[in-house]
Amino acid sequence: MAEFTNIRSPRVKAARRLTKRAFRDRDRAFLAEGPQAVREALALKDVTVELFATAEAESRHPDILAAAAAAGVPVHRASGEVMTELTQTVTPQGLLAVCRFVHVPLDEAVREGTRLVALLAHVRDPGNAGTVLRTADAAGADAVVFTDASVDPYNGKCVRASAGSLFHLPVATGAAVAEAARRTRESGLRILAADGAGTRTLDEVDLAGPTAWLFGNEAWGLPPELLDLADEVVRVPIYGRAESLNLATAAAVCLYASARVQRQTLHSVEDPPTPAR
Amino acid sequence: MAEFTNIRSPRVKAARRLTKRAFRDRDRAFLAEGPQAVREALALKDVTVELFATAEAESRHPDILAAAAAAGVPVHRASGEVMTELTQTVTPQGLLAVCRFVHVPLDEAVREGTRLVALLAHVRDPGNAGTVLRTADAAGADAVVFTDASVDPYNGKCVRASAGSLFHLPVATGAAVAEAARRTRESGLRILAADGAGTRTLDEVDLAGPTAWLFGNEAWGLPPELLDLADEVVRVPIYGRAESLNLATAAAVCLYASARVQRQTLHSVEDPPTPAR
Repeated sequence: MAEFTNIRSPRVKAARRLTKRAFRDRDRAFLAEGPQAVREALALKDVTVELFATAEAESRHPDILAAAAAAGVPVHRASGEVMTELTQTVTPQGLLAVCRFVHVPLDEAVREGTRLVALLAHVRDPGNAGTVLRTADAAGADAVVFTDASVDPYNGKCVRASAGSLFHLPVATGAAVAEAARRTRESGLRILAADGAGTRTLDEVDLAGPTAWLFGNEAWGLPPELLDLADEVVRVPIYGRAESLNLATAAAVCLYASARVQRQTLHSVEDPPTPAR
Repeated sequence: MAEFTNIRSPRVKAARRLTKRAFRDRDRAFLAEGPQAVREALALKDVTVELFATAEAESRHPDILAAAAAAGVPVHRASGEVMTELTQTVTPQGLLAVCRFVHVPLDEAVREGTRLVALLAHVRDPGNAGTVLRTADAAGADAVVFTDASVDPYNGKCVRASAGSLFHLPVATGAAVAEAARRTRESGLRILAADGAGTRTLDEVDLAGPTAWLFGNEAWGLPPELLDLADEVVRVPIYGRAESLNLATAAAVCLYASARVQRQTLHSVEDPPTPAR
């Protein structure tokens, strides 16, 4: 197998430019780094375009190389220098996939029957956005919507922080917040804005029904015009002296609270009646 | 007021070396950056040794300058270059306090009557550790213990991520995990290790009593010898397809679950009996 050692070779340059959003949007492709993300990408049909791997990574992950071969995905051997250039990380993990966009239309992500959604409005830090995506996946959310004022879900740091979850659940991107809110409400979900300005806390609102959580900017939260889009503004209770929670931890508390209550409710509907505990 | 413009001036160098742990330990002092952290430091008696401020920060935060003057804390005007050197951040916030260590002995942080504690074992990323500290504060925890294999709570990134919480609740540092576990148990708390290896989930264990949550390393969790120190290993339920949660979000879900149940229990004990709902 030929090894790419020159960062100026056309194929390496074509992949390298996907670190920039304008080129991602033009090629409708992005980069996913590391064994976990690459494994998830290969598990989906027609997502992985090509794979770059260092010699060390090839010998360490024979399963991934086999999956690529089975799917007919070309594998390019890359030198450490080329990999560093492509991943823009200090300690690259030796595996990088060029992937086709995986997002779905808003109407497909949010529809009747959808029970739990995270709506990201003005979330600007890619690490935070990726962490919320991972947490929404863990909490069993049906979809995550990156509205147009939020970071690009295909940003390298976001893909990395999502730890594979970008490939797990429907992600919509590019809709305006108002459009996402309208679609969400039309699909029968209540919109709860997570914000310190809420009068009621998470423990005081009814979380049993289909719910979309609206999360705002890391630093300044949700502006009044976005709070107005919500059915209710809800705050995570602060029991100690902290001024607030950071975005990703607040999202985790909200999404898990919904997941817990929704599942209890489902059980109590589905199960035969039991004596009150 | 004289302005420090030379990064080689002795006073700047003495502060600058506090970015290194060895010097922090020798001087028993650390750096706290930004208006929020500086305000919290000044609110405590005898914590702030001196303050560096840019001209812009001085005019933007007259309340902080007044608090420093009232407390007899010397304020040094610093150039932007000196501030960048001291804070090691790309966009320094213009305010930096040299603070005395604020941690307390383990026996003071954890004692009879303590109801909720976070024990950090092998947490190595300072941003994660600071976020857990902030979340523990928000959840109303009584203390946070940084065991000896965890990151230094006075690391600049940890202080920043704690968003002032380092100054809010008792923090202990330096004890071995086994010692912290013994003290915790002797103080009447159950130790729950948060780990994907748990057989029961967060929703299945009784969280009403005094509880210490043991959190492990970001990448490899808790090794068997530390899991053995716990009364029970508990996992956060994963409802979707994510492999796991990241450390700070898992900690948020666990600490808030404890806070919620403990408060419900307290209320049901304190309030007059009400009909079952």
